[in-house]
Amino acid sequence: MIVALSGGTGGAKLVEGLAAEIDPAELTVICNTGDDAIVHGLYVSPDIDTITYTLAGLSDPGKGWGIAGDTFAVLEQLRRLGNEAWFNLGDKDLATHITRTRLLKEGGKLSAITERMRRVLGVQSTILPMSDDRVETRVTTAQGEIPFQEYFVKERWSPEVSAVRFAGAENSQPAPGVITAILNAQAIVVCPSNPITSIGPILAVPGMRSALAKSAAAIVGVSPTIGGSAISGPAHKLMSASGVKASARGVAECYRDFLDTLIIADEDRQLISEIQQLKIRAVTADIRMPDLAHKRRLAREVLSLARK
Amino acid sequence: MIVALSGGTGGAKLVEGLAAEIDPAELTVICNTGDDAIVHGLYVSPDIDTITYTLAGLSDPGKGWGIAGDTFAVLEQLRRLGNEAWFNLGDKDLATHITRTRLLKEGGKLSAITERMRRVLGVQSTILPMSDDRVETRVTTAQGEIPFQEYFVKERWSPEVSAVRFAGAENSQPAPGVITAILNAQAIVVCPSNPITSIGPILAVPGMRSALAKSAAAIVGVSPTIGGSAISGPAHKLMSASGVKASARGVAECYRDFLDTLIIADEDRQLISEIQQLKIRAVTADIRMPDLAHKRRLAREVLSLARK
Repeated sequence: MIVALSGGTGGAKLVEGLAAEIDPAELTVICNTGDDAIVHGLYVSPDIDTITYTLAGLSDPGKGWGIAGDTFAVLEQLRRLGNEAWFNLGDKDLATHITRTRLLKEGGKLSAITERMRRVLGVQSTILPMSDDRVETRVTTAQGEIPFQEYFVKERWSPEVSAVRFAGAENSQPAPGVITAILNAQAIVVCPSNPITSIGPILAVPGMRSALAKSAAAIVGVSPTIGGSAISGPAHKLMSASGVKASARGVAECYRDFLDTLIIADEDRQLISEIQQLKIRAVTADIRMPDLAHKRRLAREVLSLARK
Repeated sequence: MIVALSGGTGGAKLVEGLAAEIDPAELTVICNTGDDAIVHGLYVSPDIDTITYTLAGLSDPGKGWGIAGDTFAVLEQLRRLGNEAWFNLGDKDLATHITRTRLLKEGGKLSAITERMRRVLGVQSTILPMSDDRVETRVTTAQGEIPFQEYFVKERWSPEVSAVRFAGAENSQPAPGVITAILNAQAIVVCPSNPITSIGPILAVPGMRSALAKSAAAIVGVSPTIGGSAISGPAHKLMSASGVKASARGVAECYRDFLDTLIIADEDRQLISEIQQLKIRAVTADIRMPDLAHKRRLAREVLSLARK
């Protein structure tokens, strides 16, 4: 069993590559839920949905969120009815959120609902939320503390961030199956997701870091940054805000207590020795994944390094 | 001020005619909420929505529910996700239910939400739910007691009904403005809605019948039946199940404690004397409303009789 820790966009690309390179039933993805948000009263879990839609072959490759070819009739009408509607929700996508919200209200756990959704959509891999408990990523800007989605989507990650925290993490528990998957994995992949707000919330769940450190599996990460910037999104800004160097070296620091190998961009080869001082093997590769061929090639590289 | 008591389909036709014949700002519609249902976790209020969409010029004239030209992308995806989806919900219509459900969850009252929705949709008339409290119409069939929408929509009103009740009615209160509207009305119209399950729940709210009896306004009803059958829907079946004669005479009985005048179909003229024995004036007219001209003509007749 291969276990991947992932956020949305960037992580989903490598997850897609992994599922294409191995028997997808042998893949378990542990998803960040710190970005989850209540939108129009509906429970939206962006990273779980991106991973599920990606593995179901439904995702919109151009956008990194939502379902390809989706329509927006409900959202347009929500706007007409005077609702604030900065969060993009397609019609088919809404069916996911409506179903999940109903099941949660009926007492269902996020993990059981996620399992049901992936099965009905024909996904063979296992998708696990990091926790069934609510952990909310919040960022502090000059205007005060706001939920991550408000910063990321509404404010298009432009405000200066001075702090990031994961509200509720200290009282959360890993979702059923998460620790077992980590301890029994043949290999663990830390996807090229934002180390602060995508992988960070997963690691903030008590028991997660120690399980990773304890696991006998090789743990291979892929840097989401090239030079001082993220390939996409605000990782570099949030790394700086969290007191971490905005570079592959900073990524390595975030995972230093459990990571065996970090794949960094060819352009970052001068960081190899710095990273290896952290007792993490550093290997360079082409880490951009513009198409399926690149996703699969990087997945093969990850799997090969996990075997060594 | 003209006050109309109404359910959905049939009532909405006369309401449309009334709003076209008078200054629509002078019209207050008191709506049945006994059919309200939680569908996919969303609070659906079919009669309020039919009246609101009708007065906003948005309703689908062919169907008697929903918004004209609406699409069904969410519903189709809800089905794909394994949800039971016998209740038709268009995409634009869903925006109403999503908004209302969120506002209710935030502590809003149905009356305030209804007021907000009608204003944002440009409706000049006042639309009031009969109550802000939950009153649920339930029917007993051979299979046991089920909510009205399940009988009406899912079972297409085919099961034999032995009883109808309005769960919660005894502890409900009229919504703010309802009693004042009745007491201050110049005329009150009982629309040609099902007397058992559309007008019945309104009358089951404590204080409603006595306010109608006390009001100085002329109260004019329109029969929803011709011969022994409803013009549309199961009124005749539910009247029989409630021990009321399935005819305009039965309609008159339902309203005998407050009704002044009942407009019945030309075909039912032989019932005039029977109805007048109940101390209700009976007048015949063409009560079918296939188009706006007929709706307006019947509305004029109602308004004229209220003046006499």
